[in-house]
Amino acid sequence: MVFLLLTKRKNYIFTDRRYSEVAGKIKDFKLIEISSAKKFEDVLKQIIVKEKIKKLAIDENDIKVSEVLKIKKTVRICSDENLVENLRKVKDNTEIKNIQKACRLADHVFKYILSQIKLGVTEKLIAQTIEVFVLGHGAQIAFKPIVAFGANSSSPHHVASDKKLKKNEIVLLDFGVKINSYCSDMTRTVFFGKATDEQKRIYRTVLNAQTKAIKFLNNHLRTKLETSDVDKVAREHIISENYPAIPHSLGHGIGLEVHEKPSLSPKSKDILANGMAFSVEPGIYIPEFGGVRIEDLVLLTAKGPQIITHANHEIIEL
Amino acid sequence: MVFLLLTKRKNYIFTDRRYSEVAGKIKDFKLIEISSAKKFEDVLKQIIVKEKIKKLAIDENDIKVSEVLKIKKTVRICSDENLVENLRKVKDNTEIKNIQKACRLADHVFKYILSQIKLGVTEKLIAQTIEVFVLGHGAQIAFKPIVAFGANSSSPHHVASDKKLKKNEIVLLDFGVKINSYCSDMTRTVFFGKATDEQKRIYRTVLNAQTKAIKFLNNHLRTKLETSDVDKVAREHIISENYPAIPHSLGHGIGLEVHEKPSLSPKSKDILANGMAFSVEPGIYIPEFGGVRIEDLVLLTAKGPQIITHANHEIIEL
Repeated sequence: MVFLLLTKRKNYIFTDRRYSEVAGKIKDFKLIEISSAKKFEDVLKQIIVKEKIKKLAIDENDIKVSEVLKIKKTVRICSDENLVENLRKVKDNTEIKNIQKACRLADHVFKYILSQIKLGVTEKLIAQTIEVFVLGHGAQIAFKPIVAFGANSSSPHHVASDKKLKKNEIVLLDFGVKINSYCSDMTRTVFFGKATDEQKRIYRTVLNAQTKAIKFLNNHLRTKLETSDVDKVAREHIISENYPAIPHSLGHGIGLEVHEKPSLSPKSKDILANGMAFSVEPGIYIPEFGGVRIEDLVLLTAKGPQIITHANHEIIEL
Repeated sequence: MVFLLLTKRKNYIFTDRRYSEVAGKIKDFKLIEISSAKKFEDVLKQIIVKEKIKKLAIDENDIKVSEVLKIKKTVRICSDENLVENLRKVKDNTEIKNIQKACRLADHVFKYILSQIKLGVTEKLIAQTIEVFVLGHGAQIAFKPIVAFGANSSSPHHVASDKKLKKNEIVLLDFGVKINSYCSDMTRTVFFGKATDEQKRIYRTVLNAQTKAIKFLNNHLRTKLETSDVDKVAREHIISENYPAIPHSLGHGIGLEVHEKPSLSPKSKDILANGMAFSVEPGIYIPEFGGVRIEDLVLLTAKGPQIITHANHEIIEL
């Protein structure tokens, strides 16, 4: 367990002996070793008294209710749900470099995994092969790969099963890589065998929805763009082609976590800014039939949106 | 995001369209699909009103503060920090079988990994090899393997680094496997080359501390044993041999998570009961010199404590 406390005077890091050796090396943070005899809430109280701290903001998404209850006895807590999330929305150069590194490895994963898609292979084996490939390259997976064959692809977050690949099935691959704690996220949908006309029509509709959303970003460079408007562009395109509405948001920020701010969704109030990195991932899902999702990561720069996932996203027939 | 609500009348599962197809198949739970238009807190409110629910207990360790704040407006929340944890302390037969399966695979991992410990290999490579082996067997790792060579082993939760293995160094391996969502956890410390007399003395002290603790469990079968007393047996043995006190607890329960109740520590108030599965993991850590930890999983049964990790824990010199 690690807690950080930032006060006007100092930055503190609290942890127990299991992690204190490493934590002690962190620059600009004073290490305070906690233990069952020297509890976090007690040491915290001492600092609060000493520094005359009147109120404390907490990261509501990253602290347990049980922990808050302990702290509450000592100091007034002013909640700010999005405190850390908001600070993390805009990435600095090091963060961007790490996300880009993760994207590059994911591009390699995709190339390699195409060679492993064969008749009779299971979703689980493909998911496992992605994991092993990523580990073999000294990186981590950012989340359990989503691998869905045929009708399974109609479930946006399908859990890889023992289903074996059959001829003419859709193959949906959604996976992310983590390098230096930063994530990538990408989805590709390919066809095992010749795609049918309907499959192609769905694919092109999804791809066009994505292209339109990214163009929209490019056309509104100097505007304070709301993410919900970007979502709307892709969403309306799919509906205009008479396909069902996207059952998820168009995209999400990415960084230390796979999903962070901003959210590109109909109800989001987030405003875009340069330095934000997020996914653009429209999808069409038809129960019993299957689904197509195409997901790329976009980095907003002063020169326009830059796509940082480079894997081919034209129709691929294996 | 998934929420469960148990009322006197019904069990509910709330999730969004990404997971609703799978969640809908869960027996004895009524699925309620939530979305940005049909928010969790709103549907929850309807149920609370309909079923005339007066108060709601929450799992303080598994719900976000931001979520509690939303629910709080509707119903009185009575916190119970250990609600779910306490329910999970005693395992049923299926749970035990899964933990045992995970332990068996971990035993294989250990055998295999011994063959990979060679001069110049890095901690990171060994950690990665463990992960790949586990994935290759269709399982997951329960946590990032701890691999520590030489003086690094004095840090109980060392993060695997690029350090290369040198002759006569200690090799500490702490890893867990997850099968069907249930975890194993095991630590072995081996010697690369001949162990020195001092290394052997430390090793035997740790092993004796573990044996004593397990014997103590066996001698108090029908007693309501406090976990803190078990911790004490191992702790005092190590101190009596003039080594530094164990800087962590003697053990922890295991199941769906690597660390759950009961806690075997000096300040724990947990009482042991049959069906509990937990680690017994004494250790001696000497800064600059290195550390030895031996960790096995014990299942409490009516017939006595049963050790469910079987990897050799006599002195191993490679």
